[in-house]
Amino acid sequence: MSIPDFDKAELLPVIAQDAESGDVLMLAYMNEEAYQETLKTGRVCYYSRSRQKLWRKGEESGNVQELKELYYDCDADTLLAKVNQIGGAACHEGYKSCFFRKINPADESFEVVGNRVFDPKEVYKK
Amino acid sequence: MSIPDFDKAELLPVIAQDAESGDVLMLAYMNEEAYQETLKTGRVCYYSRSRQKLWRKGEESGNVQELKELYYDCDADTLLAKVNQIGGAACHEGYKSCFFRKINPADESFEVVGNRVFDPKEVYKK
Repeated sequence: MSIPDFDKAELLPVIAQDAESGDVLMLAYMNEEAYQETLKTGRVCYYSRSRQKLWRKGEESGNVQELKELYYDCDADTLLAKVNQIGGAACHEGYKSCFFRKINPADESFEVVGNRVFDPKEVYKK
Repeated sequence: MSIPDFDKAELLPVIAQDAESGDVLMLAYMNEEAYQETLKTGRVCYYSRSRQKLWRKGEESGNVQELKELYYDCDADTLLAKVNQIGGAACHEGYKSCFFRKINPADESFEVVGNRVFDPKEVYKK
């Protein structure tokens, strides 16, 4: 049995945070298999909801996430992974963090606040 | 229409991060009403899945979250709120962060890494 409660939900949200800078990089999901693989390998493995299979982050781009520390919350239904993001960018759009758009509460407009680390067209070309 | 995509899911996960320290405090959910109220009031309002109603964080304990910055991710289905956590503790168990238990990957034991800011029995007594 795992400490995070996969009986509550098959998929639990996982926050990935840069272990050095503290930047929140992304949110994704793990099933128990992904969680166990992450513990075993020390590389973060998610479960892709759209592809419905294990998602070994960085498998294609090379931008893997080395697991530094793993926490779970008071309700045992959310994980926090402190990671070393290889390549410097967690987002498939080439930004360091997936949270690169900041909302202006006054009019709900947004501005892009991150810089592109890589060009997705170059990294994901086939 | 909102920028975050509430058509994708009625409830979107929201990561609350301490705007000063960068500590990840908690993960909770917003529906569109909670999101709009948060924008309007500048205080973070979630939607409680267990109570099935708006959850004005800190309403009972006084530990409200002042919204400093709000971001949304590349898929428009997750929010990141940078907040000023009044009272210093986001967790109902009295810890600064809900992620106060760290998992040891070797044997899946855990250790408590946070200090209690308040005693829940004192704060939530009725």
